[in-house]
Amino acid sequence: MPALQRPRVGHIQFLNCLPLYWGLMRSGALIDVDLHKDSPERLSAALVAGDLDVGPITLVEYLRNAADLLLLPDIAVGSDGPVLSVNLVSTVPLSSLSGRRVALGATSRTGVMLAQMYLESKVGVTPTYFQSPPDLARMLDEADAAVIIGDVALRALHDAPQHGWTVTDLGQAWRDWTGLPMVFAAWGVRRSFAEAHPGLVKDVHQAFLRSKDLCLTELDEVAEAAARWETLSAAALAHYFRVLDFSLGDRQVEGIREFARRAAERGAVPALPLGGPEFFVG
Amino acid sequence: MPALQRPRVGHIQFLNCLPLYWGLMRSGALIDVDLHKDSPERLSAALVAGDLDVGPITLVEYLRNAADLLLLPDIAVGSDGPVLSVNLVSTVPLSSLSGRRVALGATSRTGVMLAQMYLESKVGVTPTYFQSPPDLARMLDEADAAVIIGDVALRALHDAPQHGWTVTDLGQAWRDWTGLPMVFAAWGVRRSFAEAHPGLVKDVHQAFLRSKDLCLTELDEVAEAAARWETLSAAALAHYFRVLDFSLGDRQVEGIREFARRAAERGAVPALPLGGPEFFVG
Repeated sequence: MPALQRPRVGHIQFLNCLPLYWGLMRSGALIDVDLHKDSPERLSAALVAGDLDVGPITLVEYLRNAADLLLLPDIAVGSDGPVLSVNLVSTVPLSSLSGRRVALGATSRTGVMLAQMYLESKVGVTPTYFQSPPDLARMLDEADAAVIIGDVALRALHDAPQHGWTVTDLGQAWRDWTGLPMVFAAWGVRRSFAEAHPGLVKDVHQAFLRSKDLCLTELDEVAEAAARWETLSAAALAHYFRVLDFSLGDRQVEGIREFARRAAERGAVPALPLGGPEFFVG
Repeated sequence: MPALQRPRVGHIQFLNCLPLYWGLMRSGALIDVDLHKDSPERLSAALVAGDLDVGPITLVEYLRNAADLLLLPDIAVGSDGPVLSVNLVSTVPLSSLSGRRVALGATSRTGVMLAQMYLESKVGVTPTYFQSPPDLARMLDEADAAVIIGDVALRALHDAPQHGWTVTDLGQAWRDWTGLPMVFAAWGVRRSFAEAHPGLVKDVHQAFLRSKDLCLTELDEVAEAAARWETLSAAALAHYFRVLDFSLGDRQVEGIREFARRAAERGAVPALPLGGPEFFVG
């Protein structure tokens, strides 16, 4: 009898998921998973390719691959208001961006699509977009605005005033625009893996829920640990972690559906099947 | 000011180091390191190449690269008697191996050299060696004996009787032969990194010592967690973890020196400088 393989589980190596890593560590759950740390877009690709069994998937990639995936209930990374780390940074008023260049950071799919939706449908401008590595100074050398996510976006928030940049928090913008929370990433499991190993998936799901609960009660400790390595203070990090929304309840699911509807209207993703997203039922 | 980079730390993804991983997890130390899990020989190569700052290094590779490395005090993976997982498996008596083929598992440098020393200098035979992937059944199809380490060696111990194989535990063989403990891997830090970041190295070292102490008090729990994924029972795993020697005291250092002396006599490694190995002093 061969040894059982631990489930291959993705982990986003950004500050936004550090609380969950803390929870997986403190709860002891790490001993039961084969954890792969990487950037959101690489983890999304690995889950879709079958190189991971369970892991976070950026919303746009989930919508493109919903046929192969189930979502785990009650866990996501999003915001119900400001998110602080998904930002449209502009050197000119947003309303003057028509025909001007907007750099899209290559680390984000969902943030980038949200920015494009917002600029075109809410602000009412039609810029010219180009993909760019997520280096804000260089992006703004070559463009009038830039979309960045993650740690670099969080730091840009603090640097923006001294440069005279305008920062639009896309979590807040979505909330003001639609009244709904924004879900940037959810946790997917491959449908075939869930069918073959429902018990393992249930265990991983429970481990994530326990880890989420545990980290929420210890957010100040997580922030202090993170501050040893980051330029942001423990207080700024604690604020950031509290702003993030790791839940995936009814309102968040409504947010997913609304984003899916608008993205499908743009032809960017297939329509979400009626009643979707489909969840893993453990 | 850029964010500080967490030290890049290696971790052996074998059962022998699972207790240390448990300790790093339970003590919370994982939050402060960038942990890279891999096989011993790949971690050794990464440390030598500068792709890791701190990590376990197989004794032979340490001896070949002692000029670039310091060892961390009081932590190692070895045995002071049986080790259970570094085995010479033979289908014929060892004394009849002269001129016969012995397969050397490609996952071990130190275990393989110890086996060669033992066969030639203690048993007094001169086999023909060849490198092989660590698949015991195939090795013994093509050879009369095989050297294997790690999880596959541990499982072979349990399978050996039914196949009529003779298993020589090379930790026990070394101890019977020299009276000394055997150190299979120690923890090295790159000398240049230790000079540039002595505080970080001290922190990592303390984290490992705390983790070692913690896991030793919780070995039954570690064994129960591991048994969920391994073919071995929790009791067999607990016995294995207790047999392993994670210490690096005076006797273990004597064991390193004796192995180094014999390996240098064979021309396999440079002589250890007088007073070596050189330790990191935090």
